[in-house]
Amino acid sequence: MASSAVKNKRIVVVGAGNMATAIAVALVNAGNAPVAVWSRTAESAQMLADRVGVEWCCDIDALPQADVVIISVVDSALREVAVKVADKYPDAIILHTAGSIPMCALQECGAKRFGVLYPMQTVNKNSVVSLDDVTVFVEACDDVVAGEVEALARTISKKVVYASSEQRCYLHVAAVFACNFSNAVYNMAAELLEKHGLPFEAMLPLIDEAARKVHRMSPPEAQTGPARRGDANVMNAHKMMLDDELANIYETLSDYIMRRNR
Amino acid sequence: MASSAVKNKRIVVVGAGNMATAIAVALVNAGNAPVAVWSRTAESAQMLADRVGVEWCCDIDALPQADVVIISVVDSALREVAVKVADKYPDAIILHTAGSIPMCALQECGAKRFGVLYPMQTVNKNSVVSLDDVTVFVEACDDVVAGEVEALARTISKKVVYASSEQRCYLHVAAVFACNFSNAVYNMAAELLEKHGLPFEAMLPLIDEAARKVHRMSPPEAQTGPARRGDANVMNAHKMMLDDELANIYETLSDYIMRRNR
Repeated sequence: MASSAVKNKRIVVVGAGNMATAIAVALVNAGNAPVAVWSRTAESAQMLADRVGVEWCCDIDALPQADVVIISVVDSALREVAVKVADKYPDAIILHTAGSIPMCALQECGAKRFGVLYPMQTVNKNSVVSLDDVTVFVEACDDVVAGEVEALARTISKKVVYASSEQRCYLHVAAVFACNFSNAVYNMAAELLEKHGLPFEAMLPLIDEAARKVHRMSPPEAQTGPARRGDANVMNAHKMMLDDELANIYETLSDYIMRRNR
Repeated sequence: MASSAVKNKRIVVVGAGNMATAIAVALVNAGNAPVAVWSRTAESAQMLADRVGVEWCCDIDALPQADVVIISVVDSALREVAVKVADKYPDAIILHTAGSIPMCALQECGAKRFGVLYPMQTVNKNSVVSLDDVTVFVEACDDVVAGEVEALARTISKKVVYASSEQRCYLHVAAVFACNFSNAVYNMAAELLEKHGLPFEAMLPLIDEAARKVHRMSPPEAQTGPARRGDANVMNAHKMMLDDELANIYETLSDYIMRRNR
């Protein structure tokens, strides 16, 4: 069975940020604890190590032997760290977790067996959510490594999907729309309500229902509202109530909905 | 106690659409079942009446006596229906449930005691959600009616807030942002993913987490992503990957986030 083979792998997690923490916690919960974690600063390395009960270290050269090294650091530090990891671990599988960095960056840094492990979730180390239902996108340099990366991913999630470096870029943009821009429209609602002495809390059942609906049906099927109905009277009245900035956004998003609905 | 007094009120629900159904069901669950429901068509009147176990009728003049009449019909039919209701029920409290119609419309239709009951939720009669945690906004023609409308609203929700007709218009616009436009940005993500052979399902944990976050913190605190960080490199790369329509929306929403963040 793949999973027992995977559980004999010695894993090192390089990084102690939000995603590194989520992955380390998920590995521990899967009975597949990392043998060590690394961070640039002792403080953050120790904090993660204490949390998951493993060794920590701030010197890549001093890390223990490993079969898989998962590098999860900020994009701007990835190449510098990967060069050191590739030098220390010539035979290990070296993975990164960055949405916007192509897999080939690892090869350019000297890795021989490499790939990507990209859990599609916004994570925060102060409130770690399970990765169990999160799709983990994987990529690998060859079929053998692909098998190992996929087996590893399956220990932390039920949903593992292969995605190329190019596809991963589109995942990242899509996530900006689904997650960052949904929060932006919540913010617009909050501003409007605050200005008129009304509680933002009143929006929460609507926000929750909008999120729940797309579990049951596609976004085009779930769309409601004046733009969906093509109700020009209501849309004009709404735009009149808004300042220029929000009126422009209202029009842009309503036009999008109407174009999809022709 | 207000609630026992409220429970002796005879309520008629005029309308059998999504909101009328949600309100009728909520009243039944509160032990305060309507004495009758009305709809223009026998089919929909009967469907709702069967569901909540009350009398139904398609002729307003034939409805039984009532203390409170809740009119919940499409905006375009409201005035025509309200004139007939005001004529039939000169002494009853007449309420409407429309976000965008001022309370005074009921007075113009001949009502003497009137108000508004506006549950802030997107409802669908095929999957009725509880109104228990939904903020119900109320308005009334005078303090006596206000007391009665508020007591009635408290039987179906824990959250009752007074809002003027003008405030209710802003609630409606805010709901378009929080609910309709959040679905629109989900749709943009879905289109991008479909185009690149990737599953929309992968966005659901992100969408859920974005919705959950604004229960714990305000939208400005919950904001993440390249625009929040002011990461021009990532934003430019993203825009290059999008067609003109989505690139324009990406820029508009990113600019909004960046302006809030200065």
